[in-house]
Amino acid sequence: MRRLLIKNAQLITMNKQDDIFHGDVLIEGERIKEIGTNLQPDAVDAEIDARHQILLPGFIHTHIHLCQTLFRGQGDDWELMDWLKKRIWPLEAAHDEESIYYSAMLGIGELIKGGTTSIVDMETVHHTDFAFQAIQKSGIRALAGKVMMDHGEEVPKLLRETASASLQESMDLYEKWHDKDGRIQYAFSPRFVVSCSEELLKEVAFLSEKYQVCVHTHASENKGEIQIVEQERGMRNIVYLDHLGLANERLILAHCVWLDEEEKKIIRDRKVKVSHCPGSNLKLASGIAEVPDMLKSDMYVSLGADGAPCNNNLDMFQEMKLAALIQKPINGPTSMKAKQVLQMATIGGAKALGLEHEIGSIEVGKKADLILVDLHKLHAFPSYDIDPISRIVYSAYSSDVETVIINGEVVMENRRLKTMDEAIILKEANKSSKRLIGKLPTIAY
Amino acid sequence: MRRLLIKNAQLITMNKQDDIFHGDVLIEGERIKEIGTNLQPDAVDAEIDARHQILLPGFIHTHIHLCQTLFRGQGDDWELMDWLKKRIWPLEAAHDEESIYYSAMLGIGELIKGGTTSIVDMETVHHTDFAFQAIQKSGIRALAGKVMMDHGEEVPKLLRETASASLQESMDLYEKWHDKDGRIQYAFSPRFVVSCSEELLKEVAFLSEKYQVCVHTHASENKGEIQIVEQERGMRNIVYLDHLGLANERLILAHCVWLDEEEKKIIRDRKVKVSHCPGSNLKLASGIAEVPDMLKSDMYVSLGADGAPCNNNLDMFQEMKLAALIQKPINGPTSMKAKQVLQMATIGGAKALGLEHEIGSIEVGKKADLILVDLHKLHAFPSYDIDPISRIVYSAYSSDVETVIINGEVVMENRRLKTMDEAIILKEANKSSKRLIGKLPTIAY
Repeated sequence: MRRLLIKNAQLITMNKQDDIFHGDVLIEGERIKEIGTNLQPDAVDAEIDARHQILLPGFIHTHIHLCQTLFRGQGDDWELMDWLKKRIWPLEAAHDEESIYYSAMLGIGELIKGGTTSIVDMETVHHTDFAFQAIQKSGIRALAGKVMMDHGEEVPKLLRETASASLQESMDLYEKWHDKDGRIQYAFSPRFVVSCSEELLKEVAFLSEKYQVCVHTHASENKGEIQIVEQERGMRNIVYLDHLGLANERLILAHCVWLDEEEKKIIRDRKVKVSHCPGSNLKLASGIAEVPDMLKSDMYVSLGADGAPCNNNLDMFQEMKLAALIQKPINGPTSMKAKQVLQMATIGGAKALGLEHEIGSIEVGKKADLILVDLHKLHAFPSYDIDPISRIVYSAYSSDVETVIINGEVVMENRRLKTMDEAIILKEANKSSKRLIGKLPTIAY
Repeated sequence: MRRLLIKNAQLITMNKQDDIFHGDVLIEGERIKEIGTNLQPDAVDAEIDARHQILLPGFIHTHIHLCQTLFRGQGDDWELMDWLKKRIWPLEAAHDEESIYYSAMLGIGELIKGGTTSIVDMETVHHTDFAFQAIQKSGIRALAGKVMMDHGEEVPKLLRETASASLQESMDLYEKWHDKDGRIQYAFSPRFVVSCSEELLKEVAFLSEKYQVCVHTHASENKGEIQIVEQERGMRNIVYLDHLGLANERLILAHCVWLDEEEKKIIRDRKVKVSHCPGSNLKLASGIAEVPDMLKSDMYVSLGADGAPCNNNLDMFQEMKLAALIQKPINGPTSMKAKQVLQMATIGGAKALGLEHEIGSIEVGKKADLILVDLHKLHAFPSYDIDPISRIVYSAYSSDVETVIINGEVVMENRRLKTMDEAIILKEANKSSKRLIGKLPTIAY
């Protein structure tokens, strides 16, 4: 097996003891073999001198729409319902196989360059196979699925599907991609209650239990959505999901901005996972989730960027800083500390995926999903006597990430992606984008 | 005179017509000589091919403390009064000539690398001459001054000064540095009402009028401060400043988070300038200034990062994005648009300095304070049919700035600073920081 030695880094391990020290890590195959100071292994295939660099577990974004990366900048400063109905859905309907592929590659390239090693990705209705192909080629770790939507109004024809077709296509993708390459898992991905029939959601609950597979959906992002769910289903969002048997440790809920006490209790008791998306919640004017309160009551909270058109970056450094800053005017300057934020971005994300024994911290035996960050730079100095976690959360940029290792493979080295050609992706992204925008006038309802 | 031609850029001019187009700019000496498409001047000394790059007016940060750059990371997740009294003031008291110089160089280096070409800088009580030396050497445009504080409790001995000493030192610096090199101006800089006697503030008002010089201070940053001012001076902050004759078009007020209607009217009627510092206001839990309301009533609002320990970057891209995002959950998704934010960061800043006829937009005859931003990158793509202002505000990073020109001089080229040595600054910043931290136990009260 291939052996890679990382020497002389400052390790932020994110292990249970919160160990931070200068040392070395030996990777053998996909896993971390040894951690220590001044390691002298017999023979290694490669060595990285990480002097002046911080070694961290890779970031885990638990809510992303790779299919929307091509829509970046297409819906800025719009009202939420206009944003969804007039821009995002028509653009999703316009997607073809090639545009899905390059939208995913564009997003994954950006994510890896910013230190993200795992994602939870919700695609659109069709062509999801091509997103999985991009995921496979890129080397990123992913829990992904096609979106399911068989209900609701003002949806383009091309995005409307029957429950049975939606389930069949999901199962086909599950069978093709789940547990692939040791990196890829399938998640049933009903868009949100508003877009899904009760029949569909019940079947998703059944299949999730049967195959022990995650479910990824949006919930309680904004007040209008909650109102529709209450009107149509006679109860609040999370109560309804629980009623259908979906509220369990395999459920990942994006947003959760507006929860009442009953819903919080369900999430806590059933060990449901919450993906906090501060950038998106601000940009779409959704609100500010009560994350300090969630963390105090031991809810599982992780971080995500959401799609490019509601952010507009897929950047964990931005999400971490926002997650800390936006709580402070409401809950005080010590309400969300740098360490809590970094936990959400790493081990918290691993828990969302149910992979806390495999990723999310630097520990012997875990998968080698690691990043090296170079903060020997003006914007992150001085370094003398400064908490390295504070430097990562409050001062670092995604452009400070130098090296990214996923599943033991070096996928970025000295800021050069090794699994994709950036120039081609830029060119193809614009080409696909032009084609989608050209199709917009023809999208039927 | 030296002639520099910039070819093939996408120009965001920020002029009154909001012109955006692909073209060229000819710089002659300190000023913009010609703007057009396919310029073919006779002879130029240098030419920059800016294909794929956006040419913008340089950013103008209207509230910065360069003397605090060395304190980055020293007061994260602290209560505000602890932050000021236990960390910032003792560290300011510990400063010496060398540490002030490198703190300024570190901050200016970071600022230029992020596209800032002008700053409004408040130093500490002593050694301000060394900050001016750094400003002079760096090539940045600055309105700066020593802080004035002759009043208040729990202040280290070394920061306490008499009104007369404070005024004398300010006038000495004014005479040495004001109108220097066509880039440097002096600003009287009383820290905030809480730190200043009425005698001192009255004299500042007199001198500002006599010499037609700006006054830069903090006001209404947090509720505790406002309460102290009301108790001690018998009126609210801005009312008090107006009462002393300070409220006029030469006054720059940092923060203004908590203004009542009377104060807003004074600021509006007297054409007082407001420096909005969203990052700092979040991190120190101060609150969110009512900027949409200020802009609607034609108040002069610009942007600033404040000091490094309360942010922790000096980065206009971050401040722009924050300025837009934080208003949306409160005032709706269209309440703060990308264009308004970019106006605050450029021409708005120029108005704060009283230099709107010289800088802040790309127009023939204005000083050449320009930046080139390369967005031919994954995190800012696609570019097809996307508003370039939206790309700058919502997608761009400070690390995308390639070239910075101030007063006609290229001070950064291909991300390399031309007026300072980064390696030396990093080394000296840590050396100075270690010395200051070592002195902390000896700081007397």
